[in-house]
Amino acid sequence: MSITPEEFRQERDIDLRTEHEVVNIDPANRTVTARSGDEEIVQEYDHLLVATGAEAVLPPIDGFDRTGVFTLGSMSDGKDPWEYVGRARSEEDLQQPDRGPACQFLESCTGPVGIVGGGYIGIEMAEALAANGFEIHLFQRGDRILKQFSTATSKAILDPLDEQNVVVHLNADVQALEGDDEVTAISATNDYVPVEMVLVGTGVRPRTALAEDAGIQLGDTGAIATDAYRETNLQNVYAAGDCAKAAHVVTGDPAYIPLALTANRHGRAVGQTIAGEPTEGGGVAGTAAIKTFELEAARTGILDHEIARDAGFDPITETIEAKSRAGYYPEGGTVQVTLTIDRSSGRVLGGSLVSEYGEGAVHRSHALVGAVTEGITVGELSNYDLAYAPPFNTTWDPILTAAKVIDGQR
Amino acid sequence: MSITPEEFRQERDIDLRTEHEVVNIDPANRTVTARSGDEEIVQEYDHLLVATGAEAVLPPIDGFDRTGVFTLGSMSDGKDPWEYVGRARSEEDLQQPDRGPACQFLESCTGPVGIVGGGYIGIEMAEALAANGFEIHLFQRGDRILKQFSTATSKAILDPLDEQNVVVHLNADVQALEGDDEVTAISATNDYVPVEMVLVGTGVRPRTALAEDAGIQLGDTGAIATDAYRETNLQNVYAAGDCAKAAHVVTGDPAYIPLALTANRHGRAVGQTIAGEPTEGGGVAGTAAIKTFELEAARTGILDHEIARDAGFDPITETIEAKSRAGYYPEGGTVQVTLTIDRSSGRVLGGSLVSEYGEGAVHRSHALVGAVTEGITVGELSNYDLAYAPPFNTTWDPILTAAKVIDGQR
Repeated sequence: MSITPEEFRQERDIDLRTEHEVVNIDPANRTVTARSGDEEIVQEYDHLLVATGAEAVLPPIDGFDRTGVFTLGSMSDGKDPWEYVGRARSEEDLQQPDRGPACQFLESCTGPVGIVGGGYIGIEMAEALAANGFEIHLFQRGDRILKQFSTATSKAILDPLDEQNVVVHLNADVQALEGDDEVTAISATNDYVPVEMVLVGTGVRPRTALAEDAGIQLGDTGAIATDAYRETNLQNVYAAGDCAKAAHVVTGDPAYIPLALTANRHGRAVGQTIAGEPTEGGGVAGTAAIKTFELEAARTGILDHEIARDAGFDPITETIEAKSRAGYYPEGGTVQVTLTIDRSSGRVLGGSLVSEYGEGAVHRSHALVGAVTEGITVGELSNYDLAYAPPFNTTWDPILTAAKVIDGQR
Repeated sequence: MSITPEEFRQERDIDLRTEHEVVNIDPANRTVTARSGDEEIVQEYDHLLVATGAEAVLPPIDGFDRTGVFTLGSMSDGKDPWEYVGRARSEEDLQQPDRGPACQFLESCTGPVGIVGGGYIGIEMAEALAANGFEIHLFQRGDRILKQFSTATSKAILDPLDEQNVVVHLNADVQALEGDDEVTAISATNDYVPVEMVLVGTGVRPRTALAEDAGIQLGDTGAIATDAYRETNLQNVYAAGDCAKAAHVVTGDPAYIPLALTANRHGRAVGQTIAGEPTEGGGVAGTAAIKTFELEAARTGILDHEIARDAGFDPITETIEAKSRAGYYPEGGTVQVTLTIDRSSGRVLGGSLVSEYGEGAVHRSHALVGAVTEGITVGELSNYDLAYAPPFNTTWDPILTAAKVIDGQR
């Protein structure tokens, strides 16, 4: 999307082959076989990067094939529902009733829209659709949305959703997407909700079939296993991005956290390594950020006590709320900070923040990424000489206050 | 201002004595002598904290005693010029021509206002006065404003000031504040500028006379020397805040960087130490933040090459500009990041950032405070798993881009 195939070929001298599906990797002969239409080509390689990404995980629900149901796992998956909605709303289209049943259905599609999955994608889709006037019903299997964040952050994001025309159904196991050709309702554990469109964002898994067929080993996470330079068990064959695992900076253990920055960073590192400058791409901290309506939130490190205990820590968690700017400064808000630390050592394991959009929860999280990466204690964090001025924080930034509070509870 | 004397006495059980000037410390007898009006009291102590703060440094200029000249070194110094201005602008006052010469002078005071000093205080005063419709002439002795920041940050802040009714005179040695009773003009190296009010913010120095008289030792910085627990050379006598030095997190050497967070943190640490829980207050990174009109900026660590070389580093500096949000996301701006690193080790020594207000230069600087405090390399920084989402940054946050760029130039 941001660099066209022509730019790749002409400006970067990269022999980009679009619409070529690789169907086989032959590591013994160092070739890949690709199909394009009826043609099949065999390409030799010295080094190979497997960057096959991830694919949407679909829960065992009936009705995915109905018109008006969209899964969200790729760029085109993201565009399709918008084109579907856009078509319905184009005046020109509305005047052309001969454009088929989907379009006729869409003429009246202003919702409600069902969303299955309360993770990043589900919440972001809810925001985008609500901003376009749709009523939303969001179904989440667990007892809170955005479960990667702290319980407190999840609750802070959940609470105002009802004001935004988003009905959240928690502990809701979706059983079927009802209807005939077109989807007409979602039936879940405790609800039967009429809908006119359904978006499904229930996570992704690494796309590894091609690699597995070639004898490339996967790790416990189900993603392709690599060393710190992203080399797989096959010499000169690398894997990076959403198909591969990476080491977690807190535990050192392999983790599967498929996000854009890691993919980008590891792809570049492999390029440098292949070009003769061996480069480690670094680990992952599981950092993520989201804007949702009027709020922004970020999380990093390990917040889940079970994961922390498995890694040998004795986790405790505390949440504080503090002003985002000096009390006398206009237009401030609130920053809520959750920290999870190891009780005995005081080491910062993870953090989760939420504030009004623009009040800095996400950029403030940068400090916590450093803290979890460097393995510092919360006492050390509380002594950080963070920037202070009244338009940006109180004398103690909310992060320092959170560090001080939880350090006092060890 | 934020806690009244009554609250101190009643809610916190602190025997606060306002309007008591301590005139003597007698460490041999563990007493302080204070004067209040005609009364003199002698107070015994077990532990003593010297927190005498800083005092304004006045350059050798004639005319400080003229009406309409204000120095800025304390809370009341900050309030006085506003009352002076406010009085002039009150309709009620304007109808009372019998309120004395200062008030009559002020009836017509809409500027121009002269500001001597282009540091934090000078720039913040310029913003506040310009926002109230005053024309400003700001005189700075050196070749740039905000010299604690990187050259690039200084320039980014300077450039738009002319649109804000602020005329900046660089390389301007102010020689006199002209006039009779009232100040009427500033004469400097190359300029003679008529003004109706002058604010002087040319820095502060530690207020140490009382401590020196008691035999408390100062350090090379001219501030009171202490150990990591803020204890002075006299047992059970502590010093913290703007009167005392602190260790710089990059060099480990004593530094005098009088700012609010350090004072607050060290004061609390001394309290804990005296109360029986020995607590180090931590070092200083020289972190500072400022909002100036439409911009925000922060700096941390060591940017000055001479200081870096004195500490044994081989500094190089690089500045990059990057989008503050994803290119397709509405209303983004630009973040300019300057990094100074040690060429051979790659260690991050300091950073300086500037962006439009709200685009996150200040909160992003939190990442750099950690980097300089932990002594990590710029290569390690470039691998940090910082939060990314389109409303907050590009996939590589500007800090990561800066780290990558300067790491490539070593």
